[in-house]
Amino acid sequence: MNDGTTTELPEHSQGGKYTVEGKEFVRDANYISTRITRDGEDGYPVEPGRYRLVAARACPWANRSIIVRRLLGLEDVISIGMPGPTHDERSWTFDLDPDGKDPVLGIERLQQAFFARDPEYPRGITVPAMVDTRDGAVVTNDYAQITLDLSTEWAEHHRQGAPRLLPAVPEDRAEMDSVMRRVYTEVNNGVYRCGFAGSQEAYDEAYVRLFTALDWLEERLATRRFLMGRAITEADIRLFTTLVRFDAVYHGHFKCNRNKLTEMPVLWAYARDLFQLPGFGDTVDFAQIKDHYYVVHTDINPTRIVPAGPDLRGWLDPHGREELSDDPWGGGTPPGPVPDGEQVTAGHSPLAP
Amino acid sequence: MNDGTTTELPEHSQGGKYTVEGKEFVRDANYISTRITRDGEDGYPVEPGRYRLVAARACPWANRSIIVRRLLGLEDVISIGMPGPTHDERSWTFDLDPDGKDPVLGIERLQQAFFARDPEYPRGITVPAMVDTRDGAVVTNDYAQITLDLSTEWAEHHRQGAPRLLPAVPEDRAEMDSVMRRVYTEVNNGVYRCGFAGSQEAYDEAYVRLFTALDWLEERLATRRFLMGRAITEADIRLFTTLVRFDAVYHGHFKCNRNKLTEMPVLWAYARDLFQLPGFGDTVDFAQIKDHYYVVHTDINPTRIVPAGPDLRGWLDPHGREELSDDPWGGGTPPGPVPDGEQVTAGHSPLAP
Repeated sequence: MNDGTTTELPEHSQGGKYTVEGKEFVRDANYISTRITRDGEDGYPVEPGRYRLVAARACPWANRSIIVRRLLGLEDVISIGMPGPTHDERSWTFDLDPDGKDPVLGIERLQQAFFARDPEYPRGITVPAMVDTRDGAVVTNDYAQITLDLSTEWAEHHRQGAPRLLPAVPEDRAEMDSVMRRVYTEVNNGVYRCGFAGSQEAYDEAYVRLFTALDWLEERLATRRFLMGRAITEADIRLFTTLVRFDAVYHGHFKCNRNKLTEMPVLWAYARDLFQLPGFGDTVDFAQIKDHYYVVHTDINPTRIVPAGPDLRGWLDPHGREELSDDPWGGGTPPGPVPDGEQVTAGHSPLAP
Repeated sequence: MNDGTTTELPEHSQGGKYTVEGKEFVRDANYISTRITRDGEDGYPVEPGRYRLVAARACPWANRSIIVRRLLGLEDVISIGMPGPTHDERSWTFDLDPDGKDPVLGIERLQQAFFARDPEYPRGITVPAMVDTRDGAVVTNDYAQITLDLSTEWAEHHRQGAPRLLPAVPEDRAEMDSVMRRVYTEVNNGVYRCGFAGSQEAYDEAYVRLFTALDWLEERLATRRFLMGRAITEADIRLFTTLVRFDAVYHGHFKCNRNKLTEMPVLWAYARDLFQLPGFGDTVDFAQIKDHYYVVHTDINPTRIVPAGPDLRGWLDPHGREELSDDPWGGGTPPGPVPDGEQVTAGHSPLAP
């Protein structure tokens, strides 16, 4: 708690209680910052087959890492464990797996992997988390660094034709970082600031900030197929995971309701474009997304009833964005089919009918 | 309580608690059925200046009576009292009036007028209510009968050019009654069945029923400017008061979210058409509507935060429905300007900017 109007809540993990009356929502941004690197500086060298990415499909922060792993073709190098959409006050759980246990880590609760790292681990049990399969302990849950390291530290294990998600030119990288910063504070976290506002004033302010940023993006993307121009980058992945959840959960549940995404023509076409590219939409499970938000946040949805809408068929409509660029992969190629065992459950997405 | 899966709740009056876990929502449809008639059969004869219509702008059932009173030009004959949008567990209150008292009835709580009628009045304190100014007691709160009687029993006091809201031809009346019955069970009350569902199963069923009916209306209105054809009738008024609230409250707060009204082209044009006719939109206060639903139903919105959206400017867009009929008033004329003192508060509607 840093002043009279804000308070910290570990959004990923605390079942039920997400708003604090009279307070603005402030994300607890303290993560385990150990890194997996080529040089193994922190004690965790890049090593195919050694690490397991634990990433719930429901969570937008975890969804980023699922997309990046797939775009870069790291599926055979880093395995994946997927907790179910709902969790209790203490932890995400592997309730979708046989016997309710992650088949590789052999644990029922992600909390066990955090406690293997630190028996006194005091913060939220969050996804994504990279877990060392040697000792079953979490290496890092620093979601922003995880995806960047997949691009850089794991480069020698990328598939042939993997897109370059981080710009090579320093000026472009600086611009992308600036765009990503604004997308993070105003949009990725902005929707949570609306939804978990503890006062009308905090909500009203969050709403204005969110839609100001969406208007800016609507304009920026009118002339660019992707945030950085002709090809996808890390910035698009970060924006996508919020946009794909917008109408399903943020619009109603988080009261981000000036308009639906479907009512912003450029952003909606942009989101559809990404959704339809291999590696994006094929990672999205709308049923899990809705279950997560509406069941877990009992202080804003105490009935835990999950809405049946919205109608999702429009995600497959033509987007017409090819006119702005014919090279989404930046000279590379799209990823192949989703590996067996990692497909989205039938009925949970327009891509998995 | 009539079986194992349903329970009765007086929707208008019980602050806070509207859902019952495991139960379907069933409206308490027991009203004081005394009527004000030409012949004074129930002891309450039609008499200009004697009765006061108490009708909160927030409430869709009350909104009907406000529209009909205005379309028929009964403003000088039946005065109006308007409780504020929010109320406590016991009663609607006159908190918008000077000193918090209705200037004619001299009461702070509508409950007082119900108790003047019956000191043991056991049911919900609902609007609309017709109150006898002689003794300050409620005559009737039977909202469906109130508007019908305004058309028939009060006919000799209608303004010149008032539209005929009830069809003269028996077959047409029978058809209108059938349409109104379906609109009532599936739409007017259907949105509440979604919002106050006490179980996922009850909600899922309510959602399907609601959107099945909206699809039927979308089709019916594709070739008819109004529900009964070329001119407005009571049926349009009853549908309008739900549609005008749809995106503002039912879509998010009640989880009626297959799509927004703005995403059903025919219904959206039909609703805009009505909104833009004198007597309809000029009775609608979106700020009061949102305050009512989001503040009063604390069991589904415990934070009581009121969403800032949706953007309402589209209500004034051209609707193009004149092609289907050039005679909305059925040979009559539109009502004149809203009387002084009855205008919607500035800033609360696109018509009151």
